[in-house]
Amino acid sequence: MRTQYCGELNSRHEGQEVVLCGWVHRRRDHGGVIFIDLRDREGLVQIVFDPDRPEIFARAEQARSEYVLKVTGRVRARPAGTVNPDLPTGEIEVLGLDLEILNVSETPPIQLDEHGADASEELRLRYRYLDLRRPEMQARLRTRSRVTQAMRYFLDAQGFLDIETPILTKSTPEGARDYLVPSRTHPGEFFALPQSPQLFKQLLMMSGMDRYYQIARCFRDEDLRADRQPEFTQLDIEVSFMTEDELMAIMETMIRTLFRDVQGVELPDPFPRLTYAEAMRRFGSDRPDLRVPLELIDVGDLMTGVDFKVFAEPAQDPEGRVVALRLPRGGELSRKEIDGYTQFVGIYGARGLAYIKVNAWAEKGREGLQSPILKFLPDGAVDAIMARTEAVDGDLIFFGADKTTVVNESMGALRVRLGQDRGLLAEGWHPVWVVDFPMFERDAVNQRWVALHHPFTAPKEEQLDLLQSDPGACLSRAYDMVLNGTEIGGGSIRIHRDAVQRQVFKLLAITDEQAEDRFGFLLKALRFGCPPHGGIAFGLDRLVMLMTGATSIRDVMAFPKTQSAACLLTDAPSPVDENQLKELALRIRLRA
Amino acid sequence: MRTQYCGELNSRHEGQEVVLCGWVHRRRDHGGVIFIDLRDREGLVQIVFDPDRPEIFARAEQARSEYVLKVTGRVRARPAGTVNPDLPTGEIEVLGLDLEILNVSETPPIQLDEHGADASEELRLRYRYLDLRRPEMQARLRTRSRVTQAMRYFLDAQGFLDIETPILTKSTPEGARDYLVPSRTHPGEFFALPQSPQLFKQLLMMSGMDRYYQIARCFRDEDLRADRQPEFTQLDIEVSFMTEDELMAIMETMIRTLFRDVQGVELPDPFPRLTYAEAMRRFGSDRPDLRVPLELIDVGDLMTGVDFKVFAEPAQDPEGRVVALRLPRGGELSRKEIDGYTQFVGIYGARGLAYIKVNAWAEKGREGLQSPILKFLPDGAVDAIMARTEAVDGDLIFFGADKTTVVNESMGALRVRLGQDRGLLAEGWHPVWVVDFPMFERDAVNQRWVALHHPFTAPKEEQLDLLQSDPGACLSRAYDMVLNGTEIGGGSIRIHRDAVQRQVFKLLAITDEQAEDRFGFLLKALRFGCPPHGGIAFGLDRLVMLMTGATSIRDVMAFPKTQSAACLLTDAPSPVDENQLKELALRIRLRA
Repeated sequence: MRTQYCGELNSRHEGQEVVLCGWVHRRRDHGGVIFIDLRDREGLVQIVFDPDRPEIFARAEQARSEYVLKVTGRVRARPAGTVNPDLPTGEIEVLGLDLEILNVSETPPIQLDEHGADASEELRLRYRYLDLRRPEMQARLRTRSRVTQAMRYFLDAQGFLDIETPILTKSTPEGARDYLVPSRTHPGEFFALPQSPQLFKQLLMMSGMDRYYQIARCFRDEDLRADRQPEFTQLDIEVSFMTEDELMAIMETMIRTLFRDVQGVELPDPFPRLTYAEAMRRFGSDRPDLRVPLELIDVGDLMTGVDFKVFAEPAQDPEGRVVALRLPRGGELSRKEIDGYTQFVGIYGARGLAYIKVNAWAEKGREGLQSPILKFLPDGAVDAIMARTEAVDGDLIFFGADKTTVVNESMGALRVRLGQDRGLLAEGWHPVWVVDFPMFERDAVNQRWVALHHPFTAPKEEQLDLLQSDPGACLSRAYDMVLNGTEIGGGSIRIHRDAVQRQVFKLLAITDEQAEDRFGFLLKALRFGCPPHGGIAFGLDRLVMLMTGATSIRDVMAFPKTQSAACLLTDAPSPVDENQLKELALRIRLRA
Repeated sequence: MRTQYCGELNSRHEGQEVVLCGWVHRRRDHGGVIFIDLRDREGLVQIVFDPDRPEIFARAEQARSEYVLKVTGRVRARPAGTVNPDLPTGEIEVLGLDLEILNVSETPPIQLDEHGADASEELRLRYRYLDLRRPEMQARLRTRSRVTQAMRYFLDAQGFLDIETPILTKSTPEGARDYLVPSRTHPGEFFALPQSPQLFKQLLMMSGMDRYYQIARCFRDEDLRADRQPEFTQLDIEVSFMTEDELMAIMETMIRTLFRDVQGVELPDPFPRLTYAEAMRRFGSDRPDLRVPLELIDVGDLMTGVDFKVFAEPAQDPEGRVVALRLPRGGELSRKEIDGYTQFVGIYGARGLAYIKVNAWAEKGREGLQSPILKFLPDGAVDAIMARTEAVDGDLIFFGADKTTVVNESMGALRVRLGQDRGLLAEGWHPVWVVDFPMFERDAVNQRWVALHHPFTAPKEEQLDLLQSDPGACLSRAYDMVLNGTEIGGGSIRIHRDAVQRQVFKLLAITDEQAEDRFGFLLKALRFGCPPHGGIAFGLDRLVMLMTGATSIRDVMAFPKTQSAACLLTDAPSPVDENQLKELALRIRLRA
């Protein structure tokens, strides 16, 4: 119906007759002439209707915001002085020769220009079809489409097969709450929607598919935190007969290709790697934001003997940790700001936030420091702290002292927060692999081992003995890809031997009966020539959010749900007929 | 871990040292030497272990079927006389220099060679990971992956955006039974799994996305017929500002590209088109198999006056039809075969199958015909039938006479059946578009109009008046793509005007309240500048089934379900904990 997109026109089209279709973005009547900015997927162009053609002009007068028009016109240069350099089509305009109003529109309840984002999210979700007309939202969904395209083309070229796995399936082992689907043909029984295709992709390796990928929908019925959705999408990958180094190299190349193709940006080659232990030690986190030039510095060894319990006790506790975090030019912080950070670390369980302001160390030594805790610290300790943190005048040193997990979480978070607040973030994209994760964490409450990744993650070959002798020391063959402080992908080499899988289940206090019931088919499959295999999954929503600079994954999904897992547009979920429930052998439970 | 795939090796690799990983397909001990056919995704290669290397040889002796091996070896030409021309790698073999047994295997319960397909489908589904190792199944899933790849590349190049629509959604209007998902956060309410993304793709057009596609999972909780699955996949497409001819042209090109790229076959350009009326008249079906060179020939006008009620009554009935179907060389059919076809048309409601054998018409005229019904037909009618069907000696003419729907269904099916049984099918691929469908069919039971496609299908612009005056005569802007007698795609231009949509709902006896409840959000969206739009959906499973020559869609899905909608591999669906039900405010209904 058209010859071009509105946004494609430029001075090369001058003199051409074109047919355009699109929406009335803005109409202005000026000097007896009607100007309409016509909008389509590719952009805006200015159409001019002059009164020389009274019939067409009269139709143009009817046009209101969001009316759908088909315009025939001639492209011409804009008169001198009216060129709009902010608009890609700003050098030209289209003289309207014919006009058909394809559809009318009521006045939209949200603005479709740059002010649209100011509307309440509720309104934006309810009128999602209008919100999505905004150029910003269009750009985000296009980037998403280009991202999946770039991933697919890369993987296709590498011999990966795109294979679909079921959505109606059995409960998966990720441990979050499943969405259930009642079966009509098996009354009283339920399918589960997959939390990931984990077991199916392992089965595909056992099927000899060798290299698999899928852009897979996954489901978790969780209490939605700020930025979770009941359904989300991951790029799911699994390969056979490959070491972790080989797989990580391919995945790095894929992400580099993606950023080159979609963002025009070169990522480092290779990505740096950090062990889990080093990441926790230096950054207090297994997804360190390498844009932040601050690090945690262990000072526990300096504190074991001090007469200050807040430091001495964690310093002496094998499960405790004492760290310093030097903030360059932190001496500028006001009392109020420091109080704010004290509150902030409190969210992570820290009971306080000790600090030393370095006012004039170079000149005055200890006298040049300012701190409520200074009186508890002997000279030797202070000298050692100053030397180890390399603090200089004008800096401020924060301290964290508590159980290791509390210190890591609170000081790791403070590190990132300070980086943001103080404008310390390095530009650009800073990917890093985190490797050498422990196989297990100790659940303090139940005194049980829990898998740090999932129960199918393989231990290091050379540490198989530790499964027996010291499970807590056993490292896994897992790897996470972290980008600017966000985990964008995670995976592992899997267990491919029946006996090892049973041993891991046992350590996780999964009884033979439970294992049989939940994963019996996998255990059985392991006995029929399972190849060594491993994989990874990338969170697509989060990755696209990072790439587009959106602040919520809802902004990179066409039809997201609210925090209470409802769709405001279609009004789902909704009640169903009693008959439907009967067919499913279900009854709504009356409130207690 | 390897240097090549097994199946990639050929005489160009002679002399090279290679590392291969794969499964023991077959082991033969012959003349003191061990031969192992090692199999991976790309094929088989013969490995030879000789006793010169006793340690390696001893390991090779342990290898059994489906053991997983890593073999280092040297490629060499096979000795003269042992070349295997049936095997792509048959000119060479690999002398085993090192061998690692990566995993062992129990004896597989199904054979993984060409005999594997003979195993019961139950066994194949239960051990799907073994069934999928069979080269035939591997090839099918690879073709599937290549088909979606070819579709995507084509659509990406045409500016279509790949956009994901929700799986947890509101009941959709296709009319089959929905799968429901109870909501935990909204007790007593349910999501429905989509039967198609129909409404969302229309909303995406209202969002200005212009060209959308998605390879979308769809769900129907139907009583499974021979070849349905609870979840299936369609290539879902929608565009704005395009006429049906423009869209059909792009879609044809896509399918031509697909067959060229994946099958190496050229399809006709353009595809032929048939109106619905012509398809029903000539083939008794709106998905005619054009490979069959037989046609239905109307003879009702010859029968209105005959003294044979079986023909005369339907001939006089405006809702009746009488047709002839000439089968060249059908005179060869035995009485028993004709009885078989009589039974066959009975499945479709036909109460009999009249016929005339043309033994010697050229020489003897009427005396040369043989038929139980001949005595009822006057000479004029017989002459006219013979002339109209152009029957010659040796032929047989079948007759169908009944209500039009019964005649079309039974004789349309007979036509295809005869084509198959008598080896009349033309070679190759025969696509055809069927167009000009009626908007509505009359539901004889409820005396109501029902939509032939779905309620969002637009009527022909020039026939809008007929919605009021004669709905049964109103044609729609729908189109189906049919390939070798299977509908592989179907779509339409949609209604984009509020008033027309309401009028169609009214005709379909959908009350304002029902419309508001089920499609309120769509009706609302139509009021905010909905562009003219339309689309199509292709059934991916069925298309891949056709392309691979599989006889069931289960054979082109990695993990299909049984006819009772169960997964034999994972044992889904299955019972869930009482606690889970409680969280969902549900109770299992006790049997009455």
